[in-house]
Amino acid sequence: MQSAKMRQTSLLAGYSTAGKAMRAIARPAVSRRAAVVVRAEGEASGPGLEAQGPNMTALKDVQEIMDILPHRYPFLLVDRVLEWEYGKYAVGYKCVTVNDNFFPGHFPQRAIMPGVLQVEALAQLGGIVMIDPSEAAQPNNFFFGGVEGCRWRKPVVPGDVLMMRCDVTKFNKRFGICKMAAKAYVGKDLVCEAELTLVMGK
Amino acid sequence: MQSAKMRQTSLLAGYSTAGKAMRAIARPAVSRRAAVVVRAEGEASGPGLEAQGPNMTALKDVQEIMDILPHRYPFLLVDRVLEWEYGKYAVGYKCVTVNDNFFPGHFPQRAIMPGVLQVEALAQLGGIVMIDPSEAAQPNNFFFGGVEGCRWRKPVVPGDVLMMRCDVTKFNKRFGICKMAAKAYVGKDLVCEAELTLVMGK
Amino acid sequence: MQSAKMRQTSLLAGYSTAGKAMRAIARPAVSRRAAVVVRAEGEASGPGLEAQGPNMTALKDVQEIMDILPHRYPFLLVDRVLEWEYGKYAVGYKCVTVNDNFFPGHFPQRAIMPGVLQVEALAQLGGIVMIDPSEAAQPNNFFFGGVEGCRWRKPVVPGDVLMMRCDVTKFNKRFGICKMAAKAYVGKDLVCEAELTLVMGK
Amino acid sequence: MQSAKMRQTSLLAGYSTAGKAMRAIARPAVSRRAAVVVRAEGEASGPGLEAQGPNMTALKDVQEIMDILPHRYPFLLVDRVLEWEYGKYAVGYKCVTVNDNFFPGHFPQRAIMPGVLQVEALAQLGGIVMIDPSEAAQPNNFFFGGVEGCRWRKPVVPGDVLMMRCDVTKFNKRFGICKMAAKAYVGKDLVCEAELTLVMGK
Amino acid sequence: MQSAKMRQTSLLAGYSTAGKAMRAIARPAVSRRAAVVVRAEGEASGPGLEAQGPNMTALKDVQEIMDILPHRYPFLLVDRVLEWEYGKYAVGYKCVTVNDNFFPGHFPQRAIMPGVLQVEALAQLGGIVMIDPSEAAQPNNFFFGGVEGCRWRKPVVPGDVLMMRCDVTKFNKRFGICKMAAKAYVGKDLVCEAELTLVMGK
Amino acid sequence: MQSAKMRQTSLLAGYSTAGKAMRAIARPAVSRRAAVVVRAEGEASGPGLEAQGPNMTALKDVQEIMDILPHRYPFLLVDRVLEWEYGKYAVGYKCVTVNDNFFPGHFPQRAIMPGVLQVEALAQLGGIVMIDPSEAAQPNNFFFGGVEGCRWRKPVVPGDVLMMRCDVTKFNKRFGICKMAAKAYVGKDLVCEAELTLVMGK
Repeated sequence: MQSAKMRQTSLLAGYSTAGKAMRAIARPAVSRRAAVVVRAEGEASGPGLEAQGPNMTALKDVQEIMDILPHRYPFLLVDRVLEWEYGKYAVGYKCVTVNDNFFPGHFPQRAIMPGVLQVEALAQLGGIVMIDPSEAAQPNNFFFGGVEGCRWRKPVVPGDVLMMRCDVTKFNKRFGICKMAAKAYVGKDLVCEAELTLVMGK
Repeated sequence: MQSAKMRQTSLLAGYSTAGKAMRAIARPAVSRRAAVVVRAEGEASGPGLEAQGPNMTALKDVQEIMDILPHRYPFLLVDRVLEWEYGKYAVGYKCVTVNDNFFPGHFPQRAIMPGVLQVEALAQLGGIVMIDPSEAAQPNNFFFGGVEGCRWRKPVVPGDVLMMRCDVTKFNKRFGICKMAAKAYVGKDLVCEAELTLVMGK
Repeated sequence: MQSAKMRQTSLLAGYSTAGKAMRAIARPAVSRRAAVVVRAEGEASGPGLEAQGPNMTALKDVQEIMDILPHRYPFLLVDRVLEWEYGKYAVGYKCVTVNDNFFPGHFPQRAIMPGVLQVEALAQLGGIVMIDPSEAAQPNNFFFGGVEGCRWRKPVVPGDVLMMRCDVTKFNKRFGICKMAAKAYVGKDLVCEAELTLVMGK
Repeated sequence: MQSAKMRQTSLLAGYSTAGKAMRAIARPAVSRRAAVVVRAEGEASGPGLEAQGPNMTALKDVQEIMDILPHRYPFLLVDRVLEWEYGKYAVGYKCVTVNDNFFPGHFPQRAIMPGVLQVEALAQLGGIVMIDPSEAAQPNNFFFGGVEGCRWRKPVVPGDVLMMRCDVTKFNKRFGICKMAAKAYVGKDLVCEAELTLVMGK
Repeated sequence: MQSAKMRQTSLLAGYSTAGKAMRAIARPAVSRRAAVVVRAEGEASGPGLEAQGPNMTALKDVQEIMDILPHRYPFLLVDRVLEWEYGKYAVGYKCVTVNDNFFPGHFPQRAIMPGVLQVEALAQLGGIVMIDPSEAAQPNNFFFGGVEGCRWRKPVVPGDVLMMRCDVTKFNKRFGICKMAAKAYVGKDLVCEAELTLVMGK
Repeated sequence: MQSAKMRQTSLLAGYSTAGKAMRAIARPAVSRRAAVVVRAEGEASGPGLEAQGPNMTALKDVQEIMDILPHRYPFLLVDRVLEWEYGKYAVGYKCVTVNDNFFPGHFPQRAIMPGVLQVEALAQLGGIVMIDPSEAAQPNNFFFGGVEGCRWRKPVVPGDVLMMRCDVTKFNKRFGICKMAAKAYVGKDLVCEAELTLVMGK
């Protein structure tokens, strides 16, 4: 417990351990496996409760995602992984903000997240599913080989949380070819779906 | 109803009206005043429900925010307004993503949202509170005059939804000076609070 | 002829007509419909000829493309259109450079053009095919509705010229739904192919 | 041969060796010393041949260029080196795309590559000429000391391939001062020429 | 006097006139023709005086520069004009900061302002000299035609103020060709000099 | 003396030692503790003297600042430190240029430095005060905990030199909590002041 706190604070500016005051103030950047805290529909709000939003707890936060994926700014499109089973599936999401670097060009008149970047986000989540956790230090290769049945159903705009799920449907180990059913939601609305082909190195 | 759909679709690429297929597929970018849809704590999940996230309904979406505020990329830090009463208060939020333009520099080793940008986001929400809606076409001036009692309590990281509330506490109309109590949350956690001074033109 | 030169030079800094010296130095930014000039395999090279590269003549240069498409930096991915027949097909290309804004993140260790951006480039070329030239001033809406049979066959890297062709295969005018066969090449090598669905407004 | 393929694929995401499927799909990012493949003027085109563009083979691809030059995004302006003789000359090029980071500012109304960046690109190619290949791991210093006789003859615009040649004309080894004749072409057109002075460390 | 203040404050957020409090707080963004205020060598410093730096008064501030030049971010490289005589000369400067967009690439290991951008800054100042003030609303074209005798003498680094002077040495009105002697200093040190050729439209 | 020059030149492109010509041309990027060179009010100007600006000598240049602070582009806002006493105070500054990355968004119509970034710059200078120089290789953590009494008094615009001073007013070593009086000036004008709370790790 103590050491978990220490790990967090020592990461703060990336260096050493922190003093007492710091420990008092710091918290784990993302509390793990804690209860999901959201404002339910019709919930009675006490004072200040209207200021509450979702706080989705991370199984993998963005630092852990960056340990797995080689993608970096401005082309890392997964912020947090909520559920994950190696070789099976993952649930994760990307926060969409008007400060995303692609919005000035897509479009000047109206900010709409490019559909192809939703597919890229799904494929990145798919890559996380397929990385062998025992090879964390030296992850396998993978690349994005193909897409079938991709449909975009509704525009995704700043302020949306793009919630994604990738399920492995086939994995040919000999050739390293993996098929995945991938879906992206904003709230209850399915906004994008596709079947993705990832090719894994060995 | 029809015309609302038309408005949406005609905004899609910023031009004219759209055909039938488009109307069938399009939806209002942000459905207004619809029920808040979130995954409640302990909720039973049917198949696919784990892929659902929050879908916070907009009173003002980012296009309307841009009609009010002169701020633009990379310095527009409010994505959506959920509650708003002119001259009284507002609730709004910013999605925080690893694709936010400031993360490569703050910090290369660890993505933490700069505290001063949380304060900026709060001040932008404060500006939205004070803009006279009857002067939409020609909004009043305002600038950020000062900060008291600002505390940052916890790091804000990619994947967080920065939920903000600004309440007007004093407004000296003669001098255009407005004081606001401002708070930012991630889930239930208060991450930043401050008293802001905005100066309004007349 | 004179006026064509004038048009070019007056565009130079975006303002007025230019003096004699300027006319002497200026050339049309892209000479139209002139012969394609390339260095053929085995061609005898005089002094300096080894410094020659392709100079693909534009049917539509990037300014004309920007008159048609609402996309802007950093999400405009077609540089020039070489062949074009309204509602039928187009050939165009994008130059790929290490200075493309996405390469720092994809990937720091090795610059590879994201596959999804090849698909986006193809879809933008597809949009150019379907824009009614008689409505230049007020182009129709379109959005990207889906992808089938997408395959990426080889990595695209800085220094490649991504040559693209989109052919309309079906167009349901009533619903505004258009299907296109899209292919991207680097030299003789097919690097990406897909069937795209665009949805056009009316 | 096998190992060359392995090198390529292992570079793909920057890590390990790849499986069979990957080897089947992958190709060397840039096939070396293969025949130059271009569409000759007046060439008969079979189906699909209109989609072909140039595929200039690399003597040094951008990864190798980055091993030599310390320049990085957004100030690395050579994409590929086609010919190279240490201390003598080099031929290389930069692809110019509307997605180059400088175009939004030069100019909003019309995309023209800044002349000074053409000179910078030539100087970077010049630096590549003068780096001792036996000191690859620890290249010599060089800096850009001066320019004489620089002329810009025609605008360079998105879609152009800026083909460049630098020839060493004098090298004073004792003082490390190197003069170069530098020219840049778009197709047959000379667009920029200059005499460059590079100063080499020892 | 009043109206000058009003002009300033109404520009603050780009809209309307401002209230009393605002007028009390606002100042002209750049006080014109006021005394140059600097810390002289050996000056006795009272408490807090060590915090004083230069405050170079503008003849043309950056807003006026943008009325004249079509250049924009990230390629506008003159911040302020201090002296100016139409068709004769100008003195102006650019502040150099580690936050300049080119430093991440030039170079990751050490921030040095690219020499060619010093030349570009000089040429932009040269353009300001040659724009006819009576045609403010519709400035003449100009483009950068050539450079002679360019020398870079010392590295320019973040924190430097690049002080520049351009003097017209020849102007051939018939052909619109203008020669300029251009020099850039950091403090007393000459860091860059060149003879520039600008070509003016008519 | 010789070695100091060598250090400078070897840093030029980040590598090895440089030849004689280079030594002749190079200068220390920032001459240390040399006399401050400015143009005094009313000073008689000889030819060329009007081209002189301030050349503030560095106690710590930006490379040394980057050895201390983890901040990087686009969020490093101190260019040079002029005075510094460990645990006591520092004087430093940031050059403000229209090429600062935040100006395109703050605001498109008028470039004004965001007030919160002035506070950030002050806090970064404050961090430099508190870093133990004996732990250069492994600096202490610190983070920005709070702000009191912050006032912005005048707009800061491109071409301004933001001169800053931070004085430690209290330091609770046991809890690592440090209070600082922070002020920013443009010339003689106080533009921003605040009391900052930094929390130091141990």
